[in-house]
Amino acid sequence: MTENDAMNRALALALRGPRHGVNPQVGCVLLSSEGEVLAEGWHRGAGTAHAEVAALSALADPELARGATAVVTLEPCNHLGRTGPCSVALIEAGVARVVYAVADPGERSSGGAERMRDAGLEVEQGLGAESVEEAIRPWLTAVRQHRPFVTVKWASSLDGRAAAADGTSQWITGPAARADVHRRRADADAVAVGTGTVLADDPALTARDGDDLLPHQPAPVVIGRRPVPSSARVHAHPEALRRFATHDLAAVLDELYAGEVRSVFVEGGPTLASAFLAAGLADEVLVYLAPTLLGGPRTALTDLGVGTIGEQLTLAVTDVTRLGDDIRIVARPDDSSSTKE
Amino acid sequence: MTENDAMNRALALALRGPRHGVNPQVGCVLLSSEGEVLAEGWHRGAGTAHAEVAALSALADPELARGATAVVTLEPCNHLGRTGPCSVALIEAGVARVVYAVADPGERSSGGAERMRDAGLEVEQGLGAESVEEAIRPWLTAVRQHRPFVTVKWASSLDGRAAAADGTSQWITGPAARADVHRRRADADAVAVGTGTVLADDPALTARDGDDLLPHQPAPVVIGRRPVPSSARVHAHPEALRRFATHDLAAVLDELYAGEVRSVFVEGGPTLASAFLAAGLADEVLVYLAPTLLGGPRTALTDLGVGTIGEQLTLAVTDVTRLGDDIRIVARPDDSSSTKE
Ligand SMILES: NC(=O)c1ccc[n+]([C@@H]2O[C@H](COP(=O)([O-])OP(=O)(O)OC[C@H]3O[C@@H](n4cnc5c(N)ncnc54)[C@H](OP(=O)(O)O)[C@@H]3O)[C@@H](O)[C@H]2O)c1
Ligand SMILES: NC(=O)c1ccc[n+]([C@@H]2O[C@H](COP(=O)([O-])OP(=O)(O)OC[C@H]3O[C@@H](n4cnc5c(N)ncnc54)[C@H](OP(=O)(O)O)[C@@H]3O)[C@@H](O)[C@H]2O)c1
Repeated sequence: MTENDAMNRALALALRGPRHGVNPQVGCVLLSSEGEVLAEGWHRGAGTAHAEVAALSALADPELARGATAVVTLEPCNHLGRTGPCSVALIEAGVARVVYAVADPGERSSGGAERMRDAGLEVEQGLGAESVEEAIRPWLTAVRQHRPFVTVKWASSLDGRAAAADGTSQWITGPAARADVHRRRADADAVAVGTGTVLADDPALTARDGDDLLPHQPAPVVIGRRPVPSSARVHAHPEALRRFATHDLAAVLDELYAGEVRSVFVEGGPTLASAFLAAGLADEVLVYLAPTLLGGPRTALTDLGVGTIGEQLTLAVTDVTRLGDDIRIVARPDDSSSTKE
Repeated sequence: MTENDAMNRALALALRGPRHGVNPQVGCVLLSSEGEVLAEGWHRGAGTAHAEVAALSALADPELARGATAVVTLEPCNHLGRTGPCSVALIEAGVARVVYAVADPGERSSGGAERMRDAGLEVEQGLGAESVEEAIRPWLTAVRQHRPFVTVKWASSLDGRAAAADGTSQWITGPAARADVHRRRADADAVAVGTGTVLADDPALTARDGDDLLPHQPAPVVIGRRPVPSSARVHAHPEALRRFATHDLAAVLDELYAGEVRSVFVEGGPTLASAFLAAGLADEVLVYLAPTLLGGPRTALTDLGVGTIGEQLTLAVTDVTRLGDDIRIVARPDDSSSTKE
């Protein structure tokens, strides 16, 4: 297997791990000097072995590591986490060459490459970097920005309404779109709504497959000054409610980050979603468009502080998919273009 | 060639003709009894031969028609148009069998099948009917409903806004979407806007390719009571302006239909588009979504008379296409489903 193929394989392994949590998805393939696959590993989530250590442990014989090449999606870490620095594990195992895709952006964990070079290993960065960047973008973005990756999600009619004039909206979108939302909730560390949504809809904020809870539950977050009724369903969530009686979203994100949250799925309502967007605190926009028209006052986004067309929030669409009768659009802020043509 | 293949071919020929105008797109293939293609024809637009007559004229020798099979996308007409009834032309040419996809919905033109059967020809309906129905849906819908086929088009941000708070909007969508709009204008018999759009934007309402006028120009239509300024650019349109100082859209469509208009492309603004939709007078919805967010009060649709979710205007999406940075969504009223799940 070439190192390139090994990197693709390492990425596929990485994606077997969970997307949520403080640790990124990482995969590792150990190759012999002849390009034979000696062992594979990936990170299965907080408290378990890092990918490199998992791969070393999977070797038929520890001696096989001598002179081997480790192909890893992320720079081997340098800090004494629950499993010891991976850079040291690779050095001590006798690995001769390390190829990784993306540098570790973590302040405490980076420096692994340097340590391995100092120990005489051949270390190379950049192979497969683009695919890996894309695949673990939420985690990388969070660690680089020192705040959780924020996805702002809404569901609307084709004309951008979240509800009919009287506020009724259940269900605008169909079962396939709703299942997609639940899967994405389960991938997030936290799900946030405004007090308005709690008071209007009393959502459970759990990630479900039909009536069953999915294995991972995001922490429920409610933002806003009005009290959350003691009878609210969020109190029954398996994870403890995180309450922020403020409108300062940057402060909320800081506190969530400090509390090990790396990704927040903002599910609205319109006021909170618009506030995140207007503050430039959205890293991804996820829109479910239902094939229906509603008209009227209940827009899915309210005010974004855009007074004139030059101030529009330009996005880059990364995916358009039909889900049942609905259309899912994924986009991200487009930093490259502020003006058209 | 089988009759099925001949029908596909006839449909492909039909689509070479213009989409606009009082006549439909029709194609015809003449097959020998051995299934050999003897001649082909299609309708090139008002004042030119119908497809069947075009095919008969294309025969190397008129005698070849004796005993032949005519495969036609639409029931051969029965009325004395500018070219005489096609049913009679086929009878007189000695054609033995006629296979057509869709019945002629025209009051004056239908009855061709019966006349041919009476003359002893074998006549069969329905082959390829679904594809042909779909391909010439606008014309069929118009003739069946005795009013023009109405497409309601708008361009908006992903959150359903047509402009920023101060009304600025040029250009929300990119060049590929705009070119698509111009091609669709050229396919229509008329392009309609409200007085609000004329007063705000002073559009030319021509169908252009860059700076060049496309060969066919739709008639410009302005609806609303406020006067159109004498300096308005619509007056410079190559086709005469059709003015309707009324809000009665059904009456406008009646009058346009009487004036040989079979398709109207409603380009807004928000008030007029919403009025057509609320009145149930839209046969197709065409939305261009730009990858941008605007928020604020300038929604692309205003009020649709939907008070509660059960009154939503349910659509069926027929196409989703990315055009440059934009997303084009084509949908139509969904008569099949009024409730979800
Ligand atoms: N279609 C969808 O995707 C969707 C999703 C969710 C909800 N909804 C609908 O949305 C409606 C509720 O709308 P909503 O806009 O009132 O809900 P919301 O956005 O959930 O709540 C708005 C409240 O959030 C608080 N808030 C926190 N940070 C803020 C900030 N930075 N700026 C402004 N406000 C902030 C304020 O509450 P305080 O006054 O308490 O401080 C504000 O009144 C419901 O009818 C619900 O069904 C639709
Ligand atoms: N994004 C887009 O796709 C798009 C397209 C076009 C325009 N626009 C923007 O839309 C804005 C203009 O908005 P608008 O809503 O005022 O324009 P509009 O829809 O073109 O015009 C509204 C006017 O149409 C007349 N009208 C005719 N039939 C009607 C009916 N059945 N019900 C109600 N009114 C009827 C009324 O005029 P009278 O009072 O004269 O009777 C009404 O005030 C401009 O800023 C323009 O740039 C956007």
